[in-house]
Amino acid sequence: MSAGALRPIEWADGGVRLLDQRLLPAREQWLTCASVDAVAEAIRNMTVRGAPAIGITAAYGMALAAKRGEDLGAARRTLAATRPTAVNLFWALEQCARSPRQDAGGLLELARSLHDADVTTNRTLGALGARRLESGMGVVTHCNAGALATGGYGTALGVLFAAAEQGKQLHVYVEETRPRLQGARLTAWELARAGIPHTLVCDGMTASLMARGKIQAAVVGADRIAANGDTANKIGTYSLAVVARHHGVPFYVAAPKSTFDLALPDGRGIPIEERSPSEVFDWGGERTCPEATPVYNPAFDVTPAALIRALFTEAGEIESPTAAAVARVVGER
Amino acid sequence: MSAGALRPIEWADGGVRLLDQRLLPAREQWLTCASVDAVAEAIRNMTVRGAPAIGITAAYGMALAAKRGEDLGAARRTLAATRPTAVNLFWALEQCARSPRQDAGGLLELARSLHDADVTTNRTLGALGARRLESGMGVVTHCNAGALATGGYGTALGVLFAAAEQGKQLHVYVEETRPRLQGARLTAWELARAGIPHTLVCDGMTASLMARGKIQAAVVGADRIAANGDTANKIGTYSLAVVARHHGVPFYVAAPKSTFDLALPDGRGIPIEERSPSEVFDWGGERTCPEATPVYNPAFDVTPAALIRALFTEAGEIESPTAAAVARVVGER
Repeated sequence: MSAGALRPIEWADGGVRLLDQRLLPAREQWLTCASVDAVAEAIRNMTVRGAPAIGITAAYGMALAAKRGEDLGAARRTLAATRPTAVNLFWALEQCARSPRQDAGGLLELARSLHDADVTTNRTLGALGARRLESGMGVVTHCNAGALATGGYGTALGVLFAAAEQGKQLHVYVEETRPRLQGARLTAWELARAGIPHTLVCDGMTASLMARGKIQAAVVGADRIAANGDTANKIGTYSLAVVARHHGVPFYVAAPKSTFDLALPDGRGIPIEERSPSEVFDWGGERTCPEATPVYNPAFDVTPAALIRALFTEAGEIESPTAAAVARVVGER
Repeated sequence: MSAGALRPIEWADGGVRLLDQRLLPAREQWLTCASVDAVAEAIRNMTVRGAPAIGITAAYGMALAAKRGEDLGAARRTLAATRPTAVNLFWALEQCARSPRQDAGGLLELARSLHDADVTTNRTLGALGARRLESGMGVVTHCNAGALATGGYGTALGVLFAAAEQGKQLHVYVEETRPRLQGARLTAWELARAGIPHTLVCDGMTASLMARGKIQAAVVGADRIAANGDTANKIGTYSLAVVARHHGVPFYVAAPKSTFDLALPDGRGIPIEERSPSEVFDWGGERTCPEATPVYNPAFDVTPAALIRALFTEAGEIESPTAAAVARVVGER
């Protein structure tokens, strides 16, 4: 299958169809959400995850609410309460609220256009970012910012897919991404499907690969980017950025304009979701640590703009991001 | 139970008794190795692990060989072939080879004296290292360098136990330590037994804790230290050292003199064991990544001396380690 042809979100007569990402790579099973509550639960339990994918799913959720004659304000509140960090969710819900047509047809048309635009956006920013990569490079990525995390094609993986389409031979190091292993489960699955050479490593192995000269670039996605370029992404991203800086490896972020939250001057204002400790201690049903051991499980961290070499967006790249550089490319609030 | 009273290795009439560390924290089950082959397999499969513990186990293994009338040269080769990185194994086997008494009684006496000396050593270096810590500090550690990794008491955890004995109130952040989760399984278990406040985190979470000012020191053990202070330890240690440096958090290594390999001028000569990919991809019997995905699983990495604030040994501390500083405290080859 060609890289990025996958679309993990679909509208079906019965509701919103989602590829159940919790079951990958073992099983490719689709789940149909027939109510707004079901859509919200699918976002919350990570059947669908990834900032752009959550936004698109929520937009389809609003269309579903209209189709079922549900109260749109209540639907919006239900969807907004699912996950706090990815700003694309709130951006998509705002797009829906602003739609001149609040009927099912109008909202479905809007959701589809957001979905299609996201794929186009990813191809654009992917091609842009791929210019930074050359054959023979080792590239590390964290979590999953691929087709599965978006409407299709992907952001960080979009950069890698675009490089492959440009004929560049890369080797991708995939951080497994504890605790939920989206790297091992999802990114490796996408790269294997696309036939892109890759190696799975634990998150703590990347530094030693860099020390040995195996990695020339790091590319990740984003869940929310503040006006100065500070970037919230999956927990462990900041650690990767620090390690990259230490080794002089450029650290890139690929994200659509909808991931920017220009209302926040910097990353300190980004709400960080904390998830269940069981995501950390549960090991195939067994508890790895003693009952008495408390567990901390933040789902995201914030990478300061100063550690980011460039941000890739559909509107252009932002080199060495600052508030002024972000404003030039993404606009001001 | 008081901190560090645990001894995970025992001599019993039938052979070498080991607390099976693969089953912790769920079960405290002891395994008796009745032959040198069984001792070697227990080291290889990580029933017992941790550099000093491996060395002591190998010494008991040599006593067992003598007791059973096995060829001592063959026994030594079998034990030496188990795991390549921790130098304490080779150091202990050399102590055995040099023993004036090569009978069972003589070798058992030697093994017991190495065992007892290790515990004494750990209490000495622990008390030394604990002087760097103060009440109210957050301290992070990686893997397990506790009683379980040694003859008893522990090296890095010995520092924390000693701080607790000095009445210092610390909060320990325990990196779970992928892929084998010795932090979650073993370190959290030891800290819970000792009543020391702690929190389990994934390896990739520590950087964000440091950014938020939660951590004032990092303390780890070592598997082999080169003459210039470069330190091999569990994979992920180097990443932690880089992240600590970025945040100005002092990074300490606690290890007995037997962990130094003065024949190696620097860390480049330290052999790094690669273990089975299944340690990374196996998740309670399920494969997390696609069959087509290759996995890289080095068991150790090397932290350059330049990232280490001080080494704690039983012969004194080595501030900002260099070859000269190491030689002053540990001696020359």
